Amino acid sequence: MAAAKTIGDYLIQRLHAHGARHVFGVPGDYALSFFHELESSNLQVINTCDEQGAGFAADAYARVKGLGAVCVTYCVGGLKVANTTAQAFAEKSPVVVISGAPGTNERIKSPLLHHKVRDFDTQLKVFEQITIASTALDNPQTACREIDRVIDAALCHKRPVYIELPRNMVSVKIQPDYLPQETSLPSDDNALNEALLEAKTIINTSKKPVIIAGIELHRYGLQDEFLQFIDKTHIPVASTPLSKSVISEHHPLHMGIYEGAIGREEVRDYVESSDCLILMGTFMTDINLGMFTAHLDQGRSIYATSEKVYIHYHTYEDVSLGNFLKGILQTDINKREHTDSPHPESLQQLQPVAGKTITITYLYQRLNSFIDRNTVIIADTGDAMFGAMDMTIHKETKFLSPAYYASMGFAVPASIGAQLANPNLRPLVLVGDGAFQMTGMELSTAARYDLSPIVIILNNSGYGTERPMLDGCFNDVQTWKYSGLPDILKAGRGFSIKTEDQLEDALQLSRQYTKDICVLDVQIDSADRSLALERMTKAFAKQI
Amino acid sequence: MAAAKTIGDYLIQRLHAHGARHVFGVPGDYALSFFHELESSNLQVINTCDEQGAGFAADAYARVKGLGAVCVTYCVGGLKVANTTAQAFAEKSPVVVISGAPGTNERIKSPLLHHKVRDFDTQLKVFEQITIASTALDNPQTACREIDRVIDAALCHKRPVYIELPRNMVSVKIQPDYLPQETSLPSDDNALNEALLEAKTIINTSKKPVIIAGIELHRYGLQDEFLQFIDKTHIPVASTPLSKSVISEHHPLHMGIYEGAIGREEVRDYVESSDCLILMGTFMTDINLGMFTAHLDQGRSIYATSEKVYIHYHTYEDVSLGNFLKGILQTDINKREHTDSPHPESLQQLQPVAGKTITITYLYQRLNSFIDRNTVIIADTGDAMFGAMDMTIHKETKFLSPAYYASMGFAVPASIGAQLANPNLRPLVLVGDGAFQMTGMELSTAARYDLSPIVIILNNSGYGTERPMLDGCFNDVQTWKYSGLPDILKAGRGFSIKTEDQLEDALQLSRQYTKDICVLDVQIDSADRSLALERMTKAFAKQI
Repeated sequence: MAAAKTIGDYLIQRLHAHGARHVFGVPGDYALSFFHELESSNLQVINTCDEQGAGFAADAYARVKGLGAVCVTYCVGGLKVANTTAQAFAEKSPVVVISGAPGTNERIKSPLLHHKVRDFDTQLKVFEQITIASTALDNPQTACREIDRVIDAALCHKRPVYIELPRNMVSVKIQPDYLPQETSLPSDDNALNEALLEAKTIINTSKKPVIIAGIELHRYGLQDEFLQFIDKTHIPVASTPLSKSVISEHHPLHMGIYEGAIGREEVRDYVESSDCLILMGTFMTDINLGMFTAHLDQGRSIYATSEKVYIHYHTYEDVSLGNFLKGILQTDINKREHTDSPHPESLQQLQPVAGKTITITYLYQRLNSFIDRNTVIIADTGDAMFGAMDMTIHKETKFLSPAYYASMGFAVPASIGAQLANPNLRPLVLVGDGAFQMTGMELSTAARYDLSPIVIILNNSGYGTERPMLDGCFNDVQTWKYSGLPDILKAGRGFSIKTEDQLEDALQLSRQYTKDICVLDVQIDSADRSLALERMTKAFAKQI
Repeated sequence: MAAAKTIGDYLIQRLHAHGARHVFGVPGDYALSFFHELESSNLQVINTCDEQGAGFAADAYARVKGLGAVCVTYCVGGLKVANTTAQAFAEKSPVVVISGAPGTNERIKSPLLHHKVRDFDTQLKVFEQITIASTALDNPQTACREIDRVIDAALCHKRPVYIELPRNMVSVKIQPDYLPQETSLPSDDNALNEALLEAKTIINTSKKPVIIAGIELHRYGLQDEFLQFIDKTHIPVASTPLSKSVISEHHPLHMGIYEGAIGREEVRDYVESSDCLILMGTFMTDINLGMFTAHLDQGRSIYATSEKVYIHYHTYEDVSLGNFLKGILQTDINKREHTDSPHPESLQQLQPVAGKTITITYLYQRLNSFIDRNTVIIADTGDAMFGAMDMTIHKETKFLSPAYYASMGFAVPASIGAQLANPNLRPLVLVGDGAFQMTGMELSTAARYDLSPIVIILNNSGYGTERPMLDGCFNDVQTWKYSGLPDILKAGRGFSIKTEDQLEDALQLSRQYTKDICVLDVQIDSADRSLALERMTKAFAKQI
């Protein structure tokens, strides 16, 4: 690749160097010149219907590929991705938000240029709240260094960053001899060694160690090392709603999802009776902790995070999860002979009954045997996610869900990002009717770029997660004929499903139509819900 | 009405007291208890598909009714209305954003509660950037006063405000004897009187005075006084893109839209040759000024705004547009006998030609005679708006458009807000295919609440405003079969239109289906554009 000559070039080259191959977005006049540069670059522009879709798609892309990018115009585009960026922040997804902006030469005397809110830096100030680093590239002397700084922050912290690009800066020349600079987080070797020694002693003297595998294992690319660690030690593993599929759920040491009183009881019993809890990059969120029904004794915990390690009630600063995990792999940890740890329920071969009304429970059991190693499940907020918790995912990182921030509308656009990030995958989207009505028309984008998600719409006429908490008309959702959407989009196949056999037929056909979007409108009773959701909403409702 | 007993009650009563009858939104668990209170109140909850739709609907509602309200949940809901709130800020629309939030009792030790981004006050900090006043109702002692303060700010400044309502505060009792407090902007009578005297002298000694009527005349409810002023003085009036329809465009003194080189030439010539420009509440935005092609000489201007009055090169602080206008009505201003001011083109009675391909020019000319006194035109960003500039609007405030902030996706959800604000109106929505794909599915909300917009989709396969600036695949939009949407929504009528006679038939039927949503998919050539847009994009393109 030729050396970058302009600020726009340089930004594109750095995104490419860190693995991005696509940029999601919607153009606008302040961003047009950068879109024009993108079009002739080695990054492909993916146009979504709305910026919100671009934001969610870039988030999913980042989760699968390690870095995502979204490009929008000033304010009318940027502020539409405030929520998707907040989700990327909350759930540690490294998304680079690039926003066009009025040229610095257009700002003299602060004119009322279109798309301006209050001041020229209003959007920058908003994004300072919801990103880990941000910059406005208004100075050619520092632009390259600023690009390096914020992209490095995204990669170090696995959080979104914001780059504002005034349109007159896109083609400004950069220093020809500028070399990219990389920074890294501070690291304390003494603290690391002491932590490893202490952890070794605790683990080796424990009777019943357990690992709770958290999402940071995935975000920091540590899944291989983690597998080596459990294969070496044979310590059983649970994951959490947010980290579901951080390892293959067919792994013999995988017990299932731990989520306090909300998960499977045998997993909870096993975890909470452990005398040595090893938490690896786990987020201690309310949903991960089953709305705080979890009983995890800090006095028995080793808790490694991306920035520090906690053992019992003391802290080792500047010890990263990665260094801790790689270190402990070199440490002499006893191998356990065999364990009595629980396992996920084995797959059931269901016989669909013709004419029998479909239930959520049946649906998830059937989908559990439908998925394979090339399926990536993308679950939206609500029973789409809760019901899927007990599915058994074949390979690591084949389940994506906003299980902490819990923004509705993620799944359909996320399927676009996931499949572009890895074309070998076929997304299985699980989405409620409420969430589908927010962003589901991004199927148009899937059609435009020849993607093939299978979309299961849990059509229960409303916000099913909220009904058991506090119901009212405000939880109702208008009924759409979802199976007709392929006619509107002039692409894909639609299925209207009320019974077990109709589901069976639709799944078989969806498997055959390998290149098509398949929309399965699964009509379930508005009172039907998964057992997991039943338990979850009871815990939630206490707070309303 | 019984006196309010709780914080939730009080907020509802104050919204009602200031004219709101509907609240737009999407529920979520942190907002459920307030939604529950709303449901049993005298405000009707309007559920939209996505929060973005609620934000735009509330903005349009505020423009028609004087105050709008949107209610959402914490972060995942609130941050989705960041852009719509920014638009309300930029274009002075008083929208109250109410967001649920975790209870103050849930925040001890800063737990990772779902929907949280960084800190508990992250969303508040974001909204501080894009509202004129904001508050978190975390103290029962000050909650009522805070509600008064921010709602007053919305009404004084005609800007959006933000109220965060922790869920445990909704039913907290308030002081039984609390009385609402109102504040007002500072006012300087001496400055007012001097300004009036000076203005009178200048106007009466001028040869060719002209008024540019701005949007603040509408926002501050001054249209009646303004009409009295022009009827008394016979000074001719132009309006701007943002203030289009601030007076009836059939008024004999109305010349048309002034927008520099982009508008009709005879209006420009008349305005720019005036020796006394009276700007009443006009926003000096780039679009209003025709991308700064306007030549308005400050040395010949009297410029009254909501906060101060400028005469030539000096300023009268603390003199409001309202006081200035009411004062000048009492002042002895000469009545002009007759003028040579231009007028909008008279309506053309078109004969549709069977089979003749439709053009943008024909479409707008035909729509110009289709609209009547009960039509409110709602134009989205792009040629939907530019093309409509030369339509002649029958009554004041019957044209709504984001003609400054220019966010795409406004029109369809805005039509919901406008029709609920005034059920006597039938919205005529003008929207490009790009903007429709962002929020057009909010037609579902229109169907749910029995509304009847006529939606004209300018289907030209892309972002038509951008093509002449800088074109590429990024300006393409996927083709949908828009006329099939009524099948999906199980409501309304769809029309596929390629020719003049097809348009004619669809318009006639739309007029008959008075209670139905009508979707007119008008397929135009991707190179076709209105003359206004042609001139506009030439001015824009210089900046790219």
